[in-house]
Amino acid sequence: MHYEVKFPVRYYETDQMKVVHHSNYIRYFEMARNGMMEAAGLPVEVCENEIGVLFAVIGVECRFKHSARMGDVLTATAAVEEIPMAKLHVKQSVVNQRGEVCAEGTVTLAFLDARTYRPIRCPEPVARLIESRMND
Amino acid sequence: MHYEVKFPVRYYETDQMKVVHHSNYIRYFEMARNGMMEAAGLPVEVCENEIGVLFAVIGVECRFKHSARMGDVLTATAAVEEIPMAKLHVKQSVVNQRGEVCAEGTVTLAFLDARTYRPIRCPEPVARLIESRMND
Amino acid sequence: MHYEVKFPVRYYETDQMKVVHHSNYIRYFEMARNGMMEAAGLPVEVCENEIGVLFAVIGVECRFKHSARMGDVLTATAAVEEIPMAKLHVKQSVVNQRGEVCAEGTVTLAFLDARTYRPIRCPEPVARLIESRMND
Amino acid sequence: MHYEVKFPVRYYETDQMKVVHHSNYIRYFEMARNGMMEAAGLPVEVCENEIGVLFAVIGVECRFKHSARMGDVLTATAAVEEIPMAKLHVKQSVVNQRGEVCAEGTVTLAFLDARTYRPIRCPEPVARLIESRMND
Repeated sequence: MHYEVKFPVRYYETDQMKVVHHSNYIRYFEMARNGMMEAAGLPVEVCENEIGVLFAVIGVECRFKHSARMGDVLTATAAVEEIPMAKLHVKQSVVNQRGEVCAEGTVTLAFLDARTYRPIRCPEPVARLIESRMND
Repeated sequence: MHYEVKFPVRYYETDQMKVVHHSNYIRYFEMARNGMMEAAGLPVEVCENEIGVLFAVIGVECRFKHSARMGDVLTATAAVEEIPMAKLHVKQSVVNQRGEVCAEGTVTLAFLDARTYRPIRCPEPVARLIESRMND
Repeated sequence: MHYEVKFPVRYYETDQMKVVHHSNYIRYFEMARNGMMEAAGLPVEVCENEIGVLFAVIGVECRFKHSARMGDVLTATAAVEEIPMAKLHVKQSVVNQRGEVCAEGTVTLAFLDARTYRPIRCPEPVARLIESRMND
Repeated sequence: MHYEVKFPVRYYETDQMKVVHHSNYIRYFEMARNGMMEAAGLPVEVCENEIGVLFAVIGVECRFKHSARMGDVLTATAAVEEIPMAKLHVKQSVVNQRGEVCAEGTVTLAFLDARTYRPIRCPEPVARLIESRMND
């Protein structure tokens, strides 16, 4: 299960080093994850409101390799390589228009009950969706 | 009813012009408004959860006069000068450590029912609070 | 001279009212302005580095009319209706996928010398560009 | 060398899960690092402008353990436990007013020449500062 989304750097994302502030790559990762869910037919807001599950980030590991700058057009990717049980591991990257990897890493998510905020196992519809996509 | 809060510029708030990005002053204004409510004994999260009212920003008017930079210590202020009916007008400013006005303006808020998101009149506890503070 | 750019709401742009935080519309406005300059062949980073001019926001006036939410696809617009002298006035809006106006307003910018941060008149290349576009 | 800074959650930092968006902890970490440098007498903006060194984040590893919410007062910490050569490793955490650890991790920074953006060894004044603080 793989997804990518392309977007230009936004001015407010730069900092006084004249590059994209590192915290924004964590946000780009999220865009790719959410785009992946939407493309698969199960947007996160539907998961929250209809299935009653929240996707809570419990871990981020990220290496920053090349600075993105104003004028760059970036591609953020998300990939899921195993059917989740209690945790969802997502491989992520941000690449620029010249193919240079700006950032890459792994984001780990837990599933929370939307009312109690208690951890739950991966809900059936989410697990089935990922499984079906992985067999493509 | 008046409040001020002091805080240093955060690095991620700067942009590649090496000054605080203009959108952040709108956020500093909010900090002063929320600080004012908390200091008055009625934090916004209590308003949302217990009174069932949301404070929705419906208008912002802001003039930017002096750029804030990394290293600056800013003071954001909020002032309410009349008891609100359907709308709350808040005078706001951000001033730096040398007394220079960085930004000033007015933010207008509406009161929304927290379940329906429909506009309501200013809830009694909020109106009473502001009235009591204005007589101080 | 007119420009529009379409983009989905990003999760981190929402707040605990479950709508897009109002400060983000100010950022969407900027995206449309910068997109306009880039589409016209004069990206802001080129203005900064080659022409030596900074576009500094000196005023924002914005009315918020309809809340955007996660799942919405927004269109931000920027329009310039007069050739700037010392100031550039840009009409701006953000509209959702159903045509509802979420926010609209005016942003006023000054031109600053990129080294001294002193106000200057609108540089020739910028003025000529806007003039040529307005005659289209 | 250790530093901590205390601050309330800001409303715009929450997301529609009604908790602080995970990307903000990465920003809180930065606040603690920059506060540490300033408290030690060598603010990052002085490093950038006078010593000519940029602190570039090249790695982040973070575990999110407890959600922060509006109304919480957080403490972010930064600690350096070894004199840096080419890289600076900083231990970081964010703890709430009840002592619960919201996030903890490690941020790795490289030193860049402020003109060329090329990696350099830790500049003498920075190394000496850290060394002197570690002997306290």
